[in-house]
Amino acid sequence: MNEPLVTRVVAEFFGTMILILFGNGAIANCMLKGAKGNEKLTGRSSIGWLSIAIGYGCGVMIPAMMFGSISGNHLNPAVTIAQAITGIFPWSNVVPYIIAQLLGAIIGQLIIVLMYWNLYKNTEDVNIIFGSFSTNEVNNNKISGFFSEFIGTFILMFCALGLYRGMFFHQSIDIANIGVGFLIMMLVLSLGGTTGPALNPARDLGPRIVHALIPLRQKGSSHWDYSLIPIVAPIFGAICGALVYKIFFKL
Amino acid sequence: MNEPLVTRVVAEFFGTMILILFGNGAIANCMLKGAKGNEKLTGRSSIGWLSIAIGYGCGVMIPAMMFGSISGNHLNPAVTIAQAITGIFPWSNVVPYIIAQLLGAIIGQLIIVLMYWNLYKNTEDVNIIFGSFSTNEVNNNKISGFFSEFIGTFILMFCALGLYRGMFFHQSIDIANIGVGFLIMMLVLSLGGTTGPALNPARDLGPRIVHALIPLRQKGSSHWDYSLIPIVAPIFGAICGALVYKIFFKL
Amino acid sequence: MNEPLVTRVVAEFFGTMILILFGNGAIANCMLKGAKGNEKLTGRSSIGWLSIAIGYGCGVMIPAMMFGSISGNHLNPAVTIAQAITGIFPWSNVVPYIIAQLLGAIIGQLIIVLMYWNLYKNTEDVNIIFGSFSTNEVNNNKISGFFSEFIGTFILMFCALGLYRGMFFHQSIDIANIGVGFLIMMLVLSLGGTTGPALNPARDLGPRIVHALIPLRQKGSSHWDYSLIPIVAPIFGAICGALVYKIFFKL
Amino acid sequence: MNEPLVTRVVAEFFGTMILILFGNGAIANCMLKGAKGNEKLTGRSSIGWLSIAIGYGCGVMIPAMMFGSISGNHLNPAVTIAQAITGIFPWSNVVPYIIAQLLGAIIGQLIIVLMYWNLYKNTEDVNIIFGSFSTNEVNNNKISGFFSEFIGTFILMFCALGLYRGMFFHQSIDIANIGVGFLIMMLVLSLGGTTGPALNPARDLGPRIVHALIPLRQKGSSHWDYSLIPIVAPIFGAICGALVYKIFFKL
Repeated sequence: MNEPLVTRVVAEFFGTMILILFGNGAIANCMLKGAKGNEKLTGRSSIGWLSIAIGYGCGVMIPAMMFGSISGNHLNPAVTIAQAITGIFPWSNVVPYIIAQLLGAIIGQLIIVLMYWNLYKNTEDVNIIFGSFSTNEVNNNKISGFFSEFIGTFILMFCALGLYRGMFFHQSIDIANIGVGFLIMMLVLSLGGTTGPALNPARDLGPRIVHALIPLRQKGSSHWDYSLIPIVAPIFGAICGALVYKIFFKL
Repeated sequence: MNEPLVTRVVAEFFGTMILILFGNGAIANCMLKGAKGNEKLTGRSSIGWLSIAIGYGCGVMIPAMMFGSISGNHLNPAVTIAQAITGIFPWSNVVPYIIAQLLGAIIGQLIIVLMYWNLYKNTEDVNIIFGSFSTNEVNNNKISGFFSEFIGTFILMFCALGLYRGMFFHQSIDIANIGVGFLIMMLVLSLGGTTGPALNPARDLGPRIVHALIPLRQKGSSHWDYSLIPIVAPIFGAICGALVYKIFFKL
Repeated sequence: MNEPLVTRVVAEFFGTMILILFGNGAIANCMLKGAKGNEKLTGRSSIGWLSIAIGYGCGVMIPAMMFGSISGNHLNPAVTIAQAITGIFPWSNVVPYIIAQLLGAIIGQLIIVLMYWNLYKNTEDVNIIFGSFSTNEVNNNKISGFFSEFIGTFILMFCALGLYRGMFFHQSIDIANIGVGFLIMMLVLSLGGTTGPALNPARDLGPRIVHALIPLRQKGSSHWDYSLIPIVAPIFGAICGALVYKIFFKL
Repeated sequence: MNEPLVTRVVAEFFGTMILILFGNGAIANCMLKGAKGNEKLTGRSSIGWLSIAIGYGCGVMIPAMMFGSISGNHLNPAVTIAQAITGIFPWSNVVPYIIAQLLGAIIGQLIIVLMYWNLYKNTEDVNIIFGSFSTNEVNNNKISGFFSEFIGTFILMFCALGLYRGMFFHQSIDIANIGVGFLIMMLVLSLGGTTGPALNPARDLGPRIVHALIPLRQKGSSHWDYSLIPIVAPIFGAICGALVYKIFFKL
């Protein structure tokens, strides 16, 4: 991380853009009417949740390999804040990082919308459309959503710190990037069954802003009443995960 | 493994907790009524056994990358006992390790229950509910269950020893952690078709205790009559696997 | 890349052949009537888009491990041209590389046709048959196809440059080959939902030539009216991706 | 490969046993009536061909990590013979290797039969039962079977030699083991759609012998009339693959 701040901020921008392209792109391809990954007519079947989990996993792993040595590859305001609080990231860089992450998420979502525009117009179900943008509560249960986001981001932060510091024989620590990819995949696959987790304020807020602005006739609500939970809960979760790791295994 | 015992025991606790979160979490997300990974309404399909196998594989691989250099990442009383018997782990540490593993499994299962509480309440089938906790015999056939657990844990121990000692060119032995993840995945995918294997006394007993205690109206039996088999058979299997490896390839 | 040109060109030939074998072979096995991967009678289900995405991912990853140190493993005229324009590949080698890539794609497709000949004869749907050769527009929308090919190849080139230059701790940069495999998989899984992307002029034109020539009664149109788009758009996308990477992170 | 012959032969025995356990075990779990991986009653769905492909891939990758530095991890008489012919393996070891591979395949298949005995008794379809043992022609077309086995083993041998000799920066060549796992997976996923490929005389003949001997009432024919093809074609394919690699890239 000896690059100038502007290079690191550009890396956070592109990294978060790629996260949205691969994660929300996987949702769009699995769910939108007429997408190749969801095309019933030719005998292909929707792969569903596993493909989506792989999408987010690779959406973090590939930027980690590209930008880990440049910016640290946070891609997530909760990670940036938690690292600052535990003293392993300078507070002066927090705001530029978060702005870059949010902009990256917005641009990534805009590209998805443009690529899949014809399919968005064909899809009638507003929940499917919104599902390829941001998260929403289930059964009017905000507490369950908060708990799910908190625990998921706790595990994310705790494990990510462990992965980069605890390789078995310390001979090829670049492999930790692969571990982080599988970690994110599991947070979706195993711990994402209630709301479909955000675990990341930028990943949730950026696409929600895009959803609010695009001129799609049948897009439905942008669910702003829920929007604070996937911002606040991940930040608290990441801070707690980092502190617990620091207490037991030092940083 | 130069860390103090308390640090290593804490690593075993968190590692086993993560194993349960990712493994039993994957089952919960695939099987519970209304879970995103099982949500028929939006066109997503249950991915089933492959997702569950990936869940357990990553549930061991990610802690292996985090804690392998700290505690050896056993996560499993059968592995701890087998390593002590073959002389590569101190007997004095066996009891603290096992207690930590069992506590980790209990806490991990409690988190799954809290996260998926609304979905547990919606699910009527007691076999599906119990399936996200522990294992049970099929067709009243305890011998088949014993054989399945014995062979599975034999292969687990034999292969895990081989993976960490037999890398091809010995240039990047951290990759063995990835091999162990795929190994666990295969034990579920290829050798887990009868009972759905425990291969681990803590992974089975911990969640079974949680199942017995939670106040869920329609939870059904905790199947204590079967509970000894996934404790005894994995211990015997792991001991035999370690001894066979030692005889042919030394330790 | 100190090998003589002829060795490097042979590597490009075999690498592109393997790409087609694994990528288009996965489509054939998922889609053709009576293929094992699509055999309804015995209870196996078509895995569909995920298997196809894995096929293309491994179709680039495995040649990358085999030929990366020999030819650079382009397998793609768009990558070759973009690297020449950004000054990291000699212009004098561009034409031999592209000829080898196109020949490799043709021979790879011929092997697929021979292997699956009985199944091709059984399959009546001309779209399924053509889908295992090359890409085509959807809903008469050439602009959407161009945009999809442009963005996909932009991300391909931008990320591939980042992967080989940005590993986290620079200790085991061979892992970048695995990253490239996952990258290609994601381009299909997340960004391939509209046309099923080519992202590669040789991968599209080579099989299209084979389609035009084979004596299959019910093969349908070779869609030459669309054939320029998966040639031109990937070249522009790769050039832009390489230039943007060079501007922000140098080469 | 400085170990004594007996250690290397034991490694080939256990390696081929693991290949059958993970490969044919995956088929059994996907296909046999009442297996957890095929259990319709609880909402789990058969994953089918992808799981089977992963099973064979890991069935070679995990022994490669365990035994690659001991025996070279052939697991396949065709690979052993092809390496001897190209001069990179001593002829004096060929027969002991092949005997160990065949015995390993037989013992592996016996374990699968014992583990899944109750499910074999429940399954009525003789093709499903035989499919978890060995391969058979489709549509009385032995030429198609020969071609499929020949091409598949050609690619196997050609790529495996390339993987261990061509890593990109030669910094962490143990990663080639992962590449080999993905290679085998692709040979099943992309090139295995006609007969379901053996690509390995031991993998096919060993289980066929077990099938002929087990006392299962409804087991059907062992298809000995086809049994020569998955022995002869893989040997020819591997020899040609090794020679073509040697001509173009040396050994």
